Amino acid sequence: MINILIANDDGIHAKGIRELIKIARPFGNVTVVAPDSAMSGMGHAITTNRPLRLRLLKKEEHYQEYSCSGTPVDCVKMGLKVVLDNQKVDLILSGINHGSNASSNVIYSGTMGAAIEGSIEGIKSIGFSLLDYDHDADFSQSTDFIRDIIADVLKTPIPKGISLNVNIPKAKKEDIKGVKVCTQANAYWIEEYIARKDPWNGDYYWLAGEFDCGDMVEGSDIHALEQNYISIVPVQYDLTALGVIEKLNHLNK
Amino acid sequence: MINILIANDDGIHAKGIRELIKIARPFGNVTVVAPDSAMSGMGHAITTNRPLRLRLLKKEEHYQEYSCSGTPVDCVKMGLKVVLDNQKVDLILSGINHGSNASSNVIYSGTMGAAIEGSIEGIKSIGFSLLDYDHDADFSQSTDFIRDIIADVLKTPIPKGISLNVNIPKAKKEDIKGVKVCTQANAYWIEEYIARKDPWNGDYYWLAGEFDCGDMVEGSDIHALEQNYISIVPVQYDLTALGVIEKLNHLNK
Repeated sequence: MINILIANDDGIHAKGIRELIKIARPFGNVTVVAPDSAMSGMGHAITTNRPLRLRLLKKEEHYQEYSCSGTPVDCVKMGLKVVLDNQKVDLILSGINHGSNASSNVIYSGTMGAAIEGSIEGIKSIGFSLLDYDHDADFSQSTDFIRDIIADVLKTPIPKGISLNVNIPKAKKEDIKGVKVCTQANAYWIEEYIARKDPWNGDYYWLAGEFDCGDMVEGSDIHALEQNYISIVPVQYDLTALGVIEKLNHLNK
Repeated sequence: MINILIANDDGIHAKGIRELIKIARPFGNVTVVAPDSAMSGMGHAITTNRPLRLRLLKKEEHYQEYSCSGTPVDCVKMGLKVVLDNQKVDLILSGINHGSNASSNVIYSGTMGAAIEGSIEGIKSIGFSLLDYDHDADFSQSTDFIRDIIADVLKTPIPKGISLNVNIPKAKKEDIKGVKVCTQANAYWIEEYIARKDPWNGDYYWLAGEFDCGDMVEGSDIHALEQNYISIVPVQYDLTALGVIEKLNHLNK
């Protein structure tokens, strides 16, 4: 049986990770290590300035589940090094996130932070996100697609250092047209801070904003999702802008 | 005069940001927004689940300084949207970090999180790091190099979406051989968790590890730094592994 590690960023009790666990268990031994509280927007953050806690929540044949006081990336690291004690892991799954991680959202995403960490460790890793922020989002429409993607990826050689960013449209199963391998769309949050006063007249600020779907280029994840396709973007953690190196040659001294 | 925004991840009182402020002020109007506590390892994390605070620490002609209760990326966002109220910013500087952000460190780096956020906003952005973790590290050896890099970058067109990851060897000024534009080296942390018991016999874990300098390929940042060159890696936030898309065509359904 293969070994599967599952993490997320919405926390161990989120509906999305419960669905992902159900889908994953028939594939092999499943270990879950997920944050004990919501960790959205944590990107690739790790905890270095304080110690971390693990709490065993459930253990049965072929299944164990822990909460962790750290970030999604901490969960993957602790899952691999502490819970599984460096045993071979064949697949890391993250999510299912409540909300989109398409386009530039990938940068801020704890869900994808966990998947990218898996790829740094040389393990096949997939992050799943449903385009529905509701805590009670309907994940059942996408269950069959997610199961098929996991089965396909297990049969597929994925190059070293690559994880997969899978986003699923908020749509009925019968309206989802299929699956497309895509590029990360060029789209952004138009953000603002809402300023408020606390009871002692001090200012505080809430981050708010709207997503601007940007260029909608064919082949991009946002374009595929708008057409009701599931998008898969292969993600690399080598951030070198290779095409730019020559243009900066005059900075060499 | 140009407008410069400065952030870091070691916090507003770190020696590294104090040195960077001194270097930057002759270039233009400087606004500093930096974390009120140490935020190493925060990567591209943002704060969405609680409000943020800003505190004005100093204001004088052509200079203002705020601490922020958020992450390095929050500092850049609040600097641009709240403190500078969407005024045009010409340059974002982050650091000088106490410790290396070369190779895969870039992924976990709050210093580079701040710089990458600047590039998402379309602003020229540079993260500086000195290969010395000491809180009292000697930044004076690299001052002239940093000043020259800033001057060079201000004259250079940097493509949209690219930030620069500058790492500086821990060496005497006269031993630093020059500046090289590089790729991100393929090197990793070999990590472990140190397990300890709290006074109530509960387990807790500290992340620890050693950096494995990996392949040392010529042209990589680690290779340049080992030879006592300053490395500059152009960094992109489009994570699409373009070369992999065709290899995954059979995932299309």
